[in-house]
Amino acid sequence: MDSLQARIDLILERWRDERQLGYRHFKSGSNDSITDVVGVTVGHSTIDNGELQTGVTAISPCVENIYQNALPCGAAVLNGFAKPIGLVQIEELGVLETPIVLTNTLSVGRAFTGTVRHVLKTNPEIGRSLPTVNPLVLECNDGYLNDIQALAVTEEMVMETLESTDIVFERGSIGAGRGMSCFALKGGIGSSSCYVPELDATLGVLVLANFGALSALQLEGVPMGKTIEQYLQQHAPQEDKGSIIILMATDAPLEARQLKRIAKRAGAGLGRLGSYWGHGSGDIAVAFSTCSQPCPPPDAQLDPMLRAAAEGTERAVIDALLQATHVQGFDGHQRMALSDVLDGLVNQQK
Amino acid sequence: MDSLQARIDLILERWRDERQLGYRHFKSGSNDSITDVVGVTVGHSTIDNGELQTGVTAISPCVENIYQNALPCGAAVLNGFAKPIGLVQIEELGVLETPIVLTNTLSVGRAFTGTVRHVLKTNPEIGRSLPTVNPLVLECNDGYLNDIQALAVTEEMVMETLESTDIVFERGSIGAGRGMSCFALKGGIGSSSCYVPELDATLGVLVLANFGALSALQLEGVPMGKTIEQYLQQHAPQEDKGSIIILMATDAPLEARQLKRIAKRAGAGLGRLGSYWGHGSGDIAVAFSTCSQPCPPPDAQLDPMLRAAAEGTERAVIDALLQATHVQGFDGHQRMALSDVLDGLVNQQK
Amino acid sequence: MDSLQARIDLILERWRDERQLGYRHFKSGSNDSITDVVGVTVGHSTIDNGELQTGVTAISPCVENIYQNALPCGAAVLNGFAKPIGLVQIEELGVLETPIVLTNTLSVGRAFTGTVRHVLKTNPEIGRSLPTVNPLVLECNDGYLNDIQALAVTEEMVMETLESTDIVFERGSIGAGRGMSCFALKGGIGSSSCYVPELDATLGVLVLANFGALSALQLEGVPMGKTIEQYLQQHAPQEDKGSIIILMATDAPLEARQLKRIAKRAGAGLGRLGSYWGHGSGDIAVAFSTCSQPCPPPDAQLDPMLRAAAEGTERAVIDALLQATHVQGFDGHQRMALSDVLDGLVNQQK
Amino acid sequence: MDSLQARIDLILERWRDERQLGYRHFKSGSNDSITDVVGVTVGHSTIDNGELQTGVTAISPCVENIYQNALPCGAAVLNGFAKPIGLVQIEELGVLETPIVLTNTLSVGRAFTGTVRHVLKTNPEIGRSLPTVNPLVLECNDGYLNDIQALAVTEEMVMETLESTDIVFERGSIGAGRGMSCFALKGGIGSSSCYVPELDATLGVLVLANFGALSALQLEGVPMGKTIEQYLQQHAPQEDKGSIIILMATDAPLEARQLKRIAKRAGAGLGRLGSYWGHGSGDIAVAFSTCSQPCPPPDAQLDPMLRAAAEGTERAVIDALLQATHVQGFDGHQRMALSDVLDGLVNQQK
Repeated sequence: MDSLQARIDLILERWRDERQLGYRHFKSGSNDSITDVVGVTVGHSTIDNGELQTGVTAISPCVENIYQNALPCGAAVLNGFAKPIGLVQIEELGVLETPIVLTNTLSVGRAFTGTVRHVLKTNPEIGRSLPTVNPLVLECNDGYLNDIQALAVTEEMVMETLESTDIVFERGSIGAGRGMSCFALKGGIGSSSCYVPELDATLGVLVLANFGALSALQLEGVPMGKTIEQYLQQHAPQEDKGSIIILMATDAPLEARQLKRIAKRAGAGLGRLGSYWGHGSGDIAVAFSTCSQPCPPPDAQLDPMLRAAAEGTERAVIDALLQATHVQGFDGHQRMALSDVLDGLVNQQK
Repeated sequence: MDSLQARIDLILERWRDERQLGYRHFKSGSNDSITDVVGVTVGHSTIDNGELQTGVTAISPCVENIYQNALPCGAAVLNGFAKPIGLVQIEELGVLETPIVLTNTLSVGRAFTGTVRHVLKTNPEIGRSLPTVNPLVLECNDGYLNDIQALAVTEEMVMETLESTDIVFERGSIGAGRGMSCFALKGGIGSSSCYVPELDATLGVLVLANFGALSALQLEGVPMGKTIEQYLQQHAPQEDKGSIIILMATDAPLEARQLKRIAKRAGAGLGRLGSYWGHGSGDIAVAFSTCSQPCPPPDAQLDPMLRAAAEGTERAVIDALLQATHVQGFDGHQRMALSDVLDGLVNQQK
Repeated sequence: MDSLQARIDLILERWRDERQLGYRHFKSGSNDSITDVVGVTVGHSTIDNGELQTGVTAISPCVENIYQNALPCGAAVLNGFAKPIGLVQIEELGVLETPIVLTNTLSVGRAFTGTVRHVLKTNPEIGRSLPTVNPLVLECNDGYLNDIQALAVTEEMVMETLESTDIVFERGSIGAGRGMSCFALKGGIGSSSCYVPELDATLGVLVLANFGALSALQLEGVPMGKTIEQYLQQHAPQEDKGSIIILMATDAPLEARQLKRIAKRAGAGLGRLGSYWGHGSGDIAVAFSTCSQPCPPPDAQLDPMLRAAAEGTERAVIDALLQATHVQGFDGHQRMALSDVLDGLVNQQK
Repeated sequence: MDSLQARIDLILERWRDERQLGYRHFKSGSNDSITDVVGVTVGHSTIDNGELQTGVTAISPCVENIYQNALPCGAAVLNGFAKPIGLVQIEELGVLETPIVLTNTLSVGRAFTGTVRHVLKTNPEIGRSLPTVNPLVLECNDGYLNDIQALAVTEEMVMETLESTDIVFERGSIGAGRGMSCFALKGGIGSSSCYVPELDATLGVLVLANFGALSALQLEGVPMGKTIEQYLQQHAPQEDKGSIIILMATDAPLEARQLKRIAKRAGAGLGRLGSYWGHGSGDIAVAFSTCSQPCPPPDAQLDPMLRAAAEGTERAVIDALLQATHVQGFDGHQRMALSDVLDGLVNQQK
């Protein structure tokens, strides 16, 4: 036990040091949140009911009617073991025309229909004098903590979530994040923002984090996975599975192709956390600009945005881990919160 | 009117000649149908109720539990102005693990959930000890003939369709094809099959045809669009919009990459019909093999399958046009059947 | 022989009729050439020396230093059995920064280096204070008519070609087209242009045509392949192999994503000719705009450009076939010109 | 200076600890080299001549005639600001049919032609009774240390390199790596191998490392970039540019689609080093199997290979950095070796 104790000591001290030593490159926006990008709001509906531990999170990109003011948007599929809706049209046309909905894997159908019903309310000509609409719905599998077969999410719940978004929103074990796991700990919703002075722009990130093999976990460069593994006495072989969705918003006037390049850098951020985009992890990133009339800078000026995308992703995942709270759900399964584990490690030291 | 008369004369005679002259390269299977590929079955549910003219079509690739015996599958997005579900995972893993469901654009969410509920019945470990499931749902916009905002398709209707597939099935204005338009005529479900002697294999095609600018229509090489346009006295500017879904099945033991190459050739078949994959037309092709353990031949032997994919697509669309019957629906809109138009042209001649 | 005679009669008459009946949708520019797009010029160097029948064709997109004024550009790989250079960067950054060079497959290395040396002359800071340069080189395999292993094309010949482009240029068995075959006839360089009134813009096309199975050949919708096959007494099984490169230029102020959509429609044009993008045929299309500062119209306005891309491709291939002259080359191989074949068919009739 | 001193102290101690604490997950093969995969050999030609500091590196995947025994191969373009040759056909057909050649950006044309001439020697029917050949050539820009405009690499040098590959090969400032920079230090050739017990297979990696912003550098999770930056007194703004090529070989019997998934994970490995796949960095990964008749395991068994791909990439880059030696070249530019920098830091401590 001594060597574990020594190691925990070393690791925790190291993490404190990293933060002092300036591991981060970018300053955050005022709330270190995706809603630091003006116009973006977030809402949740949460089901916390015994074996049902799931929910819906909606991200609204702007205050206008987005169907009539579509925004430039690009996406990157890091690992396509996933069931997203809406990416094919974004790839072709490069625009986002609805709010984005996150939920559990088996509920994307209901989320699609709920979004359609929501959008029809204010756009009665859809599918008549106007084209149909392309909802963007993304998911992770929360089947470990949630009775996913119960299909507890309804179309109505999705509609309600879409109507309740705000600048201030909770993070952690909430909304679509309620039943999510991350590095065998409790995962969920996390967010961050980076101010990019070169473009006088902000890049905000929101993640639905449900991925990662614990043994591989690195927190700001510090490999804490095996330490936590020993502490939790989990020794089973692990895979990086589960999925992560990474949403990015920016007020920089970028075009779809550039946003796709930015979205892709989520992969570098995941790499810093120790992820290798495991086989079973459907890792997908989407980036949109809140400027509907893009006036794109040359790509050579894009470099700091790419760096911010990597760092912002890493920070949003750490945020999800630190803000998540313990959840017990389906079949008695439970996930510990990282903050509790860290407290435990510190207490062991004493 | 004389010149129109002369032209109609010329065009119709020409089409007869083409067929005599051997426009087609491949022999059909016994039913000239996707179900000529052993194991494949098709079913429909149709809503024919005033302004509601829509439905669901299901294609079951095999008699086994496909979730437990996933089949090699590849897809090609010819034009991504479309709302498919399931393509991202097929691109990543190269397998089909559910029956395929076709419906109208705004109903893909219900079709997803209906498919999930159908599959859960026989696979109770999905999302528990087994991964989740990836339904494949594809759509066209039938909003011209159907009150698409009514969301008339239900999850239950999808489940029923999935349970009622058969080798024999109707074509034309049926199932998901009920409300579809094609070259400003009545479109819908069509099918064809080509026997490829070099591989001793059959390639079956089923289309949901809802695309095409009438003026551009070519039937087996014969440009009949403008003639029909004059006959129908439609002179409005037209776009190739609406969408077409092309499904291909084969018993050749091909791998996913090869099936993707085959699916892509649907585009050549559409070109022969005069389509240019218009901006508003979400044209998507999917090909699967019924051999779950592929033993792929070298790609150099694939050439006849590529030719069959182009010809089979062309023939399946012509089948849809010829089998479709007149439909009147939303807001009094109607679409004539090609067979009625041809009769009319012949009668004019007399 | 009588039935052949009757068929030829029918086929030729039909083709004449099609042209009268208005098979084409768009009007041509003044020269029905890619150089109808202002700023675009084309040049050739040809090797016509016994078993060496090959060459180089260069397309210069603008009169400015293109490296310093990169143009929006998109590309589509219809079938990637091909050895292009430059496409990866075009996909990422969406710009063309050199003239385009066409040559035979084994000469793309020399064409790359010749282009680099050409561009370095006027851009001495490349690879120093400026980034390196991304030549775009595309190829077809002329090994049937040309001793391709001789590597007869030199870096210097490429440089000379790049310095000799003009608005007026020859078509047919010239430049990179010297040794090319098409539908088992003589292929080579063809061009066309379509004026698109909706955008007040021209779409010009240039092809290097070296593809197609003769039996599948359709000329403006008329299936003439089998007739010609009988006339030439070629009965061997054929594959659609060889490759075609399709280059498109437009003065419409489009962005890279839109140009990619346009390039893709070359596939529909090939379909109309009877091609199925055969396994062995490396079919690649590239489209660029001559407006370096794109001000893109909404995609909904793009539809006529897509139609022009399909029709312009079809017409450019027919142009290549009709302008090509008979060539004898490597190992005594020869290819007849379509115009000679048509004359022969007509003479048979007399 | 004290705080820097303290920081260096901390950082170096930390790095030692990481290695003790088991940062690495996989055991290496016997030489921690790509040639631990049986059949793979590597050769270099180096130009070390004043302002000319460049070269060629060849990787031969097998002892057989690879043109006649093509190997399954997949590639991933992480950032396409790059000039590779050969990727389009690999994407379409999924096979590698020549050795792989690495060189500087402007020399890829010569490398292509040299490879063609090399392959023609033993395959005289190429472009005649057999198809042409698809050389795979990849590059980085060494224009900081090398007079890249001199085009010093010749076709003959490429041919010689291809004939001199061996199991034992040098790493660091050698071959194509001679003039490369990495995190503003000396880069070049690095290699590693991971034994994957689950598949009883080895994954070998070779990198041509020429990328990275120094301030972002992490060595096995330890952020050393800013420390080294201070030590070197470099304070200029930096971009992650230059490029990295990552080649992976395995003896696992995988198919092309699976190899593409593995190649893609290079991006996670780069992320761990602090890279964000900068705008100007053409980051490309290629993976091949030495089993010409793949008998692919289910993708669910692929997970450890994905982890090995990430870790192997990270380790190969660290190898390149540690093995590289100081080089002075073009215009007096020079790059320090990481090993010298670390020695300097340690000496400062004393």
